[in-house]
Amino acid sequence: MSARWTRRHVLDTDDWARDEIETVLDQTAAMAEILTRPIRKAPPLRGRTVILFFAEASTRTRVSFELAAKALSADVTNITASGSSVEKGESLYDTVRTLEALGGDIVVIRHGASGAPYFVAERTGAAVINAGDGWHAHPSQGLLDAFTLRAALGDLGGKRVVIVGDVLHSRVARSDINTLVPLGARVTLSGPPTLIPTAWRCGELPPGVTYEPDVDAALDGADAAIVLRLQRERQETGLLPSIREYSRVWGITEARVSRMRPNAPVMHPGPMNEGVEIDAAVAHGSRSLIEQQVTNGVAVRMALLYLLASSPMAPGRA
Amino acid sequence: MSARWTRRHVLDTDDWARDEIETVLDQTAAMAEILTRPIRKAPPLRGRTVILFFAEASTRTRVSFELAAKALSADVTNITASGSSVEKGESLYDTVRTLEALGGDIVVIRHGASGAPYFVAERTGAAVINAGDGWHAHPSQGLLDAFTLRAALGDLGGKRVVIVGDVLHSRVARSDINTLVPLGARVTLSGPPTLIPTAWRCGELPPGVTYEPDVDAALDGADAAIVLRLQRERQETGLLPSIREYSRVWGITEARVSRMRPNAPVMHPGPMNEGVEIDAAVAHGSRSLIEQQVTNGVAVRMALLYLLASSPMAPGRA
Amino acid sequence: MSARWTRRHVLDTDDWARDEIETVLDQTAAMAEILTRPIRKAPPLRGRTVILFFAEASTRTRVSFELAAKALSADVTNITASGSSVEKGESLYDTVRTLEALGGDIVVIRHGASGAPYFVAERTGAAVINAGDGWHAHPSQGLLDAFTLRAALGDLGGKRVVIVGDVLHSRVARSDINTLVPLGARVTLSGPPTLIPTAWRCGELPPGVTYEPDVDAALDGADAAIVLRLQRERQETGLLPSIREYSRVWGITEARVSRMRPNAPVMHPGPMNEGVEIDAAVAHGSRSLIEQQVTNGVAVRMALLYLLASSPMAPGRA
Repeated sequence: MSARWTRRHVLDTDDWARDEIETVLDQTAAMAEILTRPIRKAPPLRGRTVILFFAEASTRTRVSFELAAKALSADVTNITASGSSVEKGESLYDTVRTLEALGGDIVVIRHGASGAPYFVAERTGAAVINAGDGWHAHPSQGLLDAFTLRAALGDLGGKRVVIVGDVLHSRVARSDINTLVPLGARVTLSGPPTLIPTAWRCGELPPGVTYEPDVDAALDGADAAIVLRLQRERQETGLLPSIREYSRVWGITEARVSRMRPNAPVMHPGPMNEGVEIDAAVAHGSRSLIEQQVTNGVAVRMALLYLLASSPMAPGRA
Repeated sequence: MSARWTRRHVLDTDDWARDEIETVLDQTAAMAEILTRPIRKAPPLRGRTVILFFAEASTRTRVSFELAAKALSADVTNITASGSSVEKGESLYDTVRTLEALGGDIVVIRHGASGAPYFVAERTGAAVINAGDGWHAHPSQGLLDAFTLRAALGDLGGKRVVIVGDVLHSRVARSDINTLVPLGARVTLSGPPTLIPTAWRCGELPPGVTYEPDVDAALDGADAAIVLRLQRERQETGLLPSIREYSRVWGITEARVSRMRPNAPVMHPGPMNEGVEIDAAVAHGSRSLIEQQVTNGVAVRMALLYLLASSPMAPGRA
Repeated sequence: MSARWTRRHVLDTDDWARDEIETVLDQTAAMAEILTRPIRKAPPLRGRTVILFFAEASTRTRVSFELAAKALSADVTNITASGSSVEKGESLYDTVRTLEALGGDIVVIRHGASGAPYFVAERTGAAVINAGDGWHAHPSQGLLDAFTLRAALGDLGGKRVVIVGDVLHSRVARSDINTLVPLGARVTLSGPPTLIPTAWRCGELPPGVTYEPDVDAALDGADAAIVLRLQRERQETGLLPSIREYSRVWGITEARVSRMRPNAPVMHPGPMNEGVEIDAAVAHGSRSLIEQQVTNGVAVRMALLYLLASSPMAPGRA
């Protein structure tokens, strides 16, 4: 099935065809099986080096990639901005050339600047995975959300998924749209108008996506909801009246969840502000797939690492 | 011998029976043998994941667990509070659920809040090891101190061990008492009355434990001494007159050490304030077992990881 | 060939004989071959522990040692000053005794204090590699520069290498001299007189080394140039008029590079201040060996780790 895979990098899923997405999801299922074994270890990346370059703080994504790489027997090294040459003022370009020269086969990068992974990919022979760049994209999150939803709902064709919250600043929302829509899902965005991109709020929406400012109306009869993290510091930008107000109008409570189809699941990319964008009862309730997302995240990242390493476009194979 | 081992977690040794403690010490001896081989590597945790979650700074304990886990072929990942989602305000509950969802088989946690590892253990399917929580407990330290003393003195039955210093704030003192007393040792506490728990100072002491405010009297004829680290910041709390005064009255010098039995050993959990609670001549003298404690610490942690992973109560085996 | 190798530590190359240097360079070539294989992994350090103790920030050197050790199948653990017991005021002596007691076979240390690795080596049974100490030495950098130059120029006998910049504060300059001169190269130092050691500026130079204050004259007909990093904070010491002035008078531009022999290579230990001590066009131009230096750095460190671990002087073999 991986015959379809010819990419050298995973930078964004905005130009992925449906069968590419399905290749990753099918590969993820195979990797998830490895993770259920008593010995969670497979050899395909033995003797290969994965460099995790996280210029922004992260736990779950960084650890998820680290465990994924180790489960495939790769050598892994962590680089964070603090304590590295980045502190000494080294340019991103030079850092990346150095990572490649050090022998990095795959560089996983998280960076505050949108587009940084593209910049990197154009300038290195290593395969690059975008682990989140600014407000732009977080492709492995979009893929793990699609995998999690497909496992819960089956074929996503015709299913309606609500994404609620601060869409404007959310790379997760963008990457979810880019994977869910090609798989046939319809996406309803909901959230404060100030936190929706202007063009989208004014009706210029991507295919398969609608905007419904009333979150109750958006949730009515939906098949699933993805709740976005609210950055508390948005309040200082004037885009948000108050945390209390946000929580009252947009917070996902059990009452709101009950508007969806029976057993329609709730997801969140984490870390959560419980009591703000999501109530604890929902976060830890029977509909929550939030921990399943984390577990699937490791399998998705194994699949991406495996596909990049075995691609005909992989470094040293071209 | 590990037939006796049925625990899912190592949170505190306050309720451990003597034969459980001995099971760990015997297993530690087997692990110590592995560490003497030219290739210090054994396979039992291959394909298992150990997550080291250290919310407080540490070198020796963190590295000790890391090397122990790697010697048993586990995959290991480090999470510190800074640079993690904890910085973003994630609750301990959510962090721990995430660590389990990521596939952590064993979570080793150090936390400033007493009881945090209990909170974690109740809410995760992973096995949890307390690597130090507030003033409460540090069970692997108690076990390595018992192992080190048993190796030096033989059967601890009837042996008298002096623990000197800031007992009030010491999780080490509590964990030492919890392992040494069941093995038959008698413990004499000594230190400034302001740094001894009130109930203990007033005579309500645990079985096998006495308090002797005069450190010279406490050391007379003792079989061993464990010197506690003095937190210099205690001075600001008014519990301590001055560092100089503490050192003069309570500091362990060669003269004081000579009051003990011939060759009676001296231990310290580290890191030491040399010249404050212990003189350099004692710390690095012939009676010092301080480096042996560090070496034994790796073997004790290997034993704990091994027993937890092979327990009938281990995750995935219940 | 490693019959010649009898060292227990790599602290400085100032007392190395030519054949010792050549032993390392030949071993490096063998290691570089391993790094070209599809599976970059060899077993010689399996079950051995390498501790990376970096008390100063570093990316390339720290990661280079980490990947080198992992390629040789060692277990590796990282210790940085922040988040470690060093923060709690532990002495270097106690930290090092602890690292050995934890089972470290090889300790790689970077430290701000010149001489710290010597202090450590005298007090531990582990093998010690100096990964940079103050202004003093950075022997693995000197060796990788020699390896890189030998690969580019062949036999270094009679070749003239210009080292330009802040020689006074540069451990790289000192280590380059210590490896290049025994291999037969002549070294010309150039840079502001305030940034050259007084004795050297006044003519008391080591054998094989000259000082030429005019950088254009120094480069005329040279076989290679090594450009040193300018620490921007030097400006505050009064040793440097301004960054702009430094760049104008000493910065390595394409025009200056063209004064050297045709195709004479340019090197830099990184991280670079592009536009200050070196122009971007030179740093990334056809003569630049800067990335090759990074790649060779991994191979050199593999060679050093391998030689130390297999030395008759290695811990446990004496």
